[in-house]
Amino acid sequence: MRIKVIVEYDGSGYGGWQRQINSNSIQQTIEESLYRLTGRNIIIHGAGRTDAGVHAYGQVFHFDDDRIPAEKYAGALNSELPFDIRAVSAQSVDENFHSRFDAVGKKYRYRILNQDHPTAIERNYAWRVYRRLHVEKMKKAAQDLLGEHDFTSFMAARSFVNTTVRDIHSIDIAREGNLITIDVAGNGFLRSMVRIIAGTLVEVGSGQRDYREMNHIIESKNRPSAGVTAPASGLYLMEVYY
Amino acid sequence: MRIKVIVEYDGSGYGGWQRQINSNSIQQTIEESLYRLTGRNIIIHGAGRTDAGVHAYGQVFHFDDDRIPAEKYAGALNSELPFDIRAVSAQSVDENFHSRFDAVGKKYRYRILNQDHPTAIERNYAWRVYRRLHVEKMKKAAQDLLGEHDFTSFMAARSFVNTTVRDIHSIDIAREGNLITIDVAGNGFLRSMVRIIAGTLVEVGSGQRDYREMNHIIESKNRPSAGVTAPASGLYLMEVYY
Repeated sequence: MRIKVIVEYDGSGYGGWQRQINSNSIQQTIEESLYRLTGRNIIIHGAGRTDAGVHAYGQVFHFDDDRIPAEKYAGALNSELPFDIRAVSAQSVDENFHSRFDAVGKKYRYRILNQDHPTAIERNYAWRVYRRLHVEKMKKAAQDLLGEHDFTSFMAARSFVNTTVRDIHSIDIAREGNLITIDVAGNGFLRSMVRIIAGTLVEVGSGQRDYREMNHIIESKNRPSAGVTAPASGLYLMEVYY
Repeated sequence: MRIKVIVEYDGSGYGGWQRQINSNSIQQTIEESLYRLTGRNIIIHGAGRTDAGVHAYGQVFHFDDDRIPAEKYAGALNSELPFDIRAVSAQSVDENFHSRFDAVGKKYRYRILNQDHPTAIERNYAWRVYRRLHVEKMKKAAQDLLGEHDFTSFMAARSFVNTTVRDIHSIDIAREGNLITIDVAGNGFLRSMVRIIAGTLVEVGSGQRDYREMNHIIESKNRPSAGVTAPASGLYLMEVYY
């Protein structure tokens, strides 16, 4: 039986989603919990990797198991997982379902705390930017990112992919007091793409860049043309679409 | 020179504000930072104690020192403090100023995450309540708490104070998606008072209690008449008024 799980995690204490040699990963932590539950070495398949320090409200993974009914799996997992990882829901799916290959889109959120003093409570959960940001300029710049483009300029250096073309469906930017949220939805994202978009939009909002530069940045297909990579702490994988 | 500091802290990793034998306190952590800055044992005086796990955006303390100019003290403190405690501002004040005795009021916030699944990201920052809460009922119940009352029913057992009369100036309750915030301002608060108010309002919102019980609870002057003490993780000291 194939099981699809939606999982929320606080990425602060992990080296990222993917299993790796020198740091604890979210994938490995979940697989260890599955081992304690079932006595079997179960490999899970995530919808996408998240980097160290990145959070998720709606990461998705699948695996195969017949020992525990699907509708009990969320509760069973939560009895074994550490408290910074929580299964939100579990359901049985078609045996051909694949969390990564079947995904048709994703939504990310980036959170910015725009204030002159540092933050203790949000230190792992937002990017504190002290320059006053003009959200209207950021919204104008974001318009040029919409639609299908070659996003090479917004991809981490030394990434290797088949295609650098992605389709951004929506970018919503809103301010509420000191908090600015950037919600980005698209058919897929390159390595660090949302963080480089956030970093570039912050440079526009602070007046370091003109919002009319966005098209040139995209067309240059050159990572250094875009802005800084915003810190991992502000990034959240919100939802995976199927 | 007397210096007044506003401080933000994430209470998750501390045994509360006040110095104590068996756990690390926020007060002690700040005093150790002052020792490293000045080479002197400086005692700080907080506007009020917060319990283990309780957070603050606007705790206030004062102390006396002449080695560092007041306007540089926030930055100097932040260079020594751990990242879960941040000085927001520092200013020199009259030598008779006292953070506790001069306070004329305080504002607290209580955060409730009202959803059926558990939370990883907010595990230390909100109370997750799975029963659906009716905010309108909670608002009606809160009306009866406004003004001057004997709040014995809303005081932790085995507390000793000169008077149990307090004046609640405002209670604002709002829902935004799954998040419910309760903002309470008053001239002062008894031990656990905001947490017992939050716990009682949740019992009203979930239908376990009628909103018309509030007056009886107050008049009974009896802790067991009120609801549960809501967890420390959802409580924030927002501001101290002078």
